[in-house]
Amino acid sequence: MGLRRSWLESANAPECDFPLNNLPYGVFSVGDSDLRCGVAIGDRIVDATGLEAAGLLPADPDADVLDAPYWNDFMELGREAWSRYRAALTAMLAEGADEAVQDQIVTHSVPIKDATLHMPFRVSEYTDFYAGRHHATNVGTMFRGPENALPPNWLHMPIGYNGRASSVVVSGTPVTRPHGQLKGRDDDVPHWGASARFDLELEIGAIVGQASDGPLSVQQAFDNIFGYVLLNDWSARDIQAWEYQPLGPFQAKATATTISAWIVTAEALEPFRISTPDRLEPLLPYLQEPGPMLYDIALEVGLAPTGKAETVIARTNYGEMYYSSAQQLAHHSSSGCPMRVGDLLGSGTISGPDRETRGSLLELSWGGKEPLTLDTGEGRCFLEDGDTVTLRGAAMGDGYRIGFGPCAGQVMPARP
Amino acid sequence: MGLRRSWLESANAPECDFPLNNLPYGVFSVGDSDLRCGVAIGDRIVDATGLEAAGLLPADPDADVLDAPYWNDFMELGREAWSRYRAALTAMLAEGADEAVQDQIVTHSVPIKDATLHMPFRVSEYTDFYAGRHHATNVGTMFRGPENALPPNWLHMPIGYNGRASSVVVSGTPVTRPHGQLKGRDDDVPHWGASARFDLELEIGAIVGQASDGPLSVQQAFDNIFGYVLLNDWSARDIQAWEYQPLGPFQAKATATTISAWIVTAEALEPFRISTPDRLEPLLPYLQEPGPMLYDIALEVGLAPTGKAETVIARTNYGEMYYSSAQQLAHHSSSGCPMRVGDLLGSGTISGPDRETRGSLLELSWGGKEPLTLDTGEGRCFLEDGDTVTLRGAAMGDGYRIGFGPCAGQVMPARP
Repeated sequence: MGLRRSWLESANAPECDFPLNNLPYGVFSVGDSDLRCGVAIGDRIVDATGLEAAGLLPADPDADVLDAPYWNDFMELGREAWSRYRAALTAMLAEGADEAVQDQIVTHSVPIKDATLHMPFRVSEYTDFYAGRHHATNVGTMFRGPENALPPNWLHMPIGYNGRASSVVVSGTPVTRPHGQLKGRDDDVPHWGASARFDLELEIGAIVGQASDGPLSVQQAFDNIFGYVLLNDWSARDIQAWEYQPLGPFQAKATATTISAWIVTAEALEPFRISTPDRLEPLLPYLQEPGPMLYDIALEVGLAPTGKAETVIARTNYGEMYYSSAQQLAHHSSSGCPMRVGDLLGSGTISGPDRETRGSLLELSWGGKEPLTLDTGEGRCFLEDGDTVTLRGAAMGDGYRIGFGPCAGQVMPARP
Repeated sequence: MGLRRSWLESANAPECDFPLNNLPYGVFSVGDSDLRCGVAIGDRIVDATGLEAAGLLPADPDADVLDAPYWNDFMELGREAWSRYRAALTAMLAEGADEAVQDQIVTHSVPIKDATLHMPFRVSEYTDFYAGRHHATNVGTMFRGPENALPPNWLHMPIGYNGRASSVVVSGTPVTRPHGQLKGRDDDVPHWGASARFDLELEIGAIVGQASDGPLSVQQAFDNIFGYVLLNDWSARDIQAWEYQPLGPFQAKATATTISAWIVTAEALEPFRISTPDRLEPLLPYLQEPGPMLYDIALEVGLAPTGKAETVIARTNYGEMYYSSAQQLAHHSSSGCPMRVGDLLGSGTISGPDRETRGSLLELSWGGKEPLTLDTGEGRCFLEDGDTVTLRGAAMGDGYRIGFGPCAGQVMPARP
C-alpha cells in the first residue's frame, strides 16, 4: 500500500509523521481550553470531541465517548467500532471528499503548533517487560557475568514486572533526578543521595483496548491491543542495583515513565507486521504466535545537553524484540490476571546486536566504563542535569511514514 | 480508653467486632439496590450515602462525596474531614443521643446479615511488601539457604514490588486456581499446568488516603494513611519459583488478592499503636519513625476443607512486622513516585518466630516437607480445591475489640 492522499496537503509530504495512513489519537488543548480528543493529520489536529458534539462524526450512536480528556471510553467500544470510526474519518480526510466536509474539518481543527498535548489515555496499570534479547544479554552480562547473562527462564517466557501507572507522563514533562538508597561496591552500608547513574530506556508501549478476565490466546491478545506509543522507562541504575534483589526493580523505575503523545493504532501499523526472530528454544503453545505480530518500526534516541545540539546516540528497530506485545499480554493474562482498558505494556528496552543500536546508556557506555562522545565533544556515561532525551520512531512505507511524534523529557536537578 | 457505649445494644457486646470505637467503612447493597457507602456498628450497617442525601450527616458541605460505590472521594477530603465525620457519627450513635437522631439512624440502616458487601474502595495501585523478618528469613532459607536468608538490603529498606490492582477482590469472592509455567527441579524444560503449590499469605493492607507528588517523611506518610484491611496475597509458589528471577514475582501473584470488606480507620486504631521491633541495623534518617507506627493487632488464619470444620492454622500479631506501613509509604515515595488516593500497600506476610505463628503454608509446611494436620485429620502442604481460607484480626481493647471482619476466599478448581 502506498500513501493515501489527503486534501490537506501537509499530510502528503513524504517526511510528514501524520499522513492519512496514520491518524494517531491524542488529547490536546489550545490556550485555556478544556482537554479534547484529537487526531493528527499533516500539520493539524482534528477536534474529535468537537466533531462528535456537532454530530458530524459519532464514534458510538448511543453515547458521547469522546467528550472526555482521554480515549479510554472510545477504546471500550471494541475493535469493530475502532475500524468503523477510522474508516469514516479517513473518508472525510481523503482527497476527493466533499467541500462541505472539508469545511467542517477545517472548522473543527487546529494547527498542531498552537496546541498543548496531554496524556492520550488514562493509564490503568503499567507493566514493563524485559523482552529484548540483546538488552537482556548485555545487562545480564554486566550484572551477573556472561555465563549467567540470560536467566534460565528467559527463552521460555516474556519476563516482566508491574510498574507504577501514576508515574507515566506525556512527552515534554520534565523529569526530576531521584534520590534513593545508594551503595557502592566497597561501601559497608548504603547512603541517601541523588542518583548518579540516571538512565533512559528506549521502548515501545502497547495499550490494552479491551478488558479480559481470564487467560487470553496470543491471537486474542493481539486483537485486544488498541495501539502503540514510544516509551522511555527512566531508570536509576544505582538505586536499582542495590534494591532489585530479590523482588525486582521498585523505586529505580518509579520516578517517571515518559510516553509519546500520539497513540498510533494497530490498524495503522497493519502493513508493517513482521515475525519475531527465530526461537532459540521452542515456546509452550500458549505463547506461540499464529502470525507476524511484531512491527518494522525504525527507532532512534537523541540526547541534547542544555542549550546544545542533539546527538543521535542509538538507532535500532522494534523488530529486534524476542517477544511481541501480543505474547506479553497473553503471558500477563495466563494466571487469570484481569486486564483492563488502558493497561500499558512496555516492550522492554530495544537494543540491536551492535553498540550503536543499544537502547540505554547502561549498555552504550557498558556500565559507565566506556563513555560516549557526543557531537558536541562532551562525554556521557549516564544522564546529566539539563540533558534532553528524545525518542523517535516511524514505520517506513512507500513514500510515506507512520510516525509516532517525539517522546521527550529533560532531566531536572534532584530536589534540594 | 474503654468501650464507648452506643444506644445500639448489639455494639456493646465485648465480642462484637464493630463497637462504637471502631466504625469501619464499607460498601454494601441490599437485594438489587445500588451500591452505597456504609458504616458498621454492632449488627447493623448505617447507610452513609442515605444519611448524606438526606442532609443528616454531610461529609463535605460542598459535594455529595458519599454518593458513590466507594470511599475514595471521602478520603480525598483529608484528615481533618475524616476526623470531623467520625466525631459527628460517633455523637449520633453514642448512648444518650437524641431519640430523633436514633430514629434517623434506624431509618437509614440495615442489618448486616441482610446486606451484600462489596469492595470498599477503588484500588488505584497495589504494592506488596516483604517486611516481616521471620517470613523473609523463613522463605529466604528455603529459597537461598540459611546463610543467604535475608538479602543484604533487607535490614536497610522495606523491600517491595508493584502488584496488580485489577486482581484485588473483596472477601467472599471465589479464587480460581491459576495455570502457569511450572518447572520441577529435575525438569529440563517447563510445562504448562495448574499450580500445585497454591498458597495464602496473611497480611495487613494500608490504604493511602491522600495523594502526594514527592518524597514523604515517615510522619507525613503515617498521616496520609486512611485505614487498614486484612489482606490475603494468594501465591502460586511453583509459578513463582520459576518466574521470579531476576525481576520479581509476576503471574504467581496476579490471580487474586483478597481484602476484608471493612476499612478500619487509623483513628480507630490510635489506642493500639506500638513500636516496630529493635533495629538490627540503623536505618537511614528518611526511614526513621518519630513514634510508634505499628499496631497491636491479633491475627489468625483459618482453613476449612469443603463442607468441613475450620482449623485455625496460625495465630500471630501485626506487631511482628519489621517495617510499618508508614515506613513503607515513605520509602515508596522516596524516588518521587506519585502516590494516589486508593493506593493499597500490603504489609508483607506476617509471621512470628514459632511454627504456629507462620502466615503462609509455604512456611507452615516448610516448603511442603512437613504437612500440617488439620483438626479433621487431613494433611495439608498447600491449598486444595474447595478449601476456604479465612483471615481474622482485631485490636483488643479493655472490654471491646476493633475487629476487621473476615477476609475469606474459597479455592475453585483450575479452568479446564
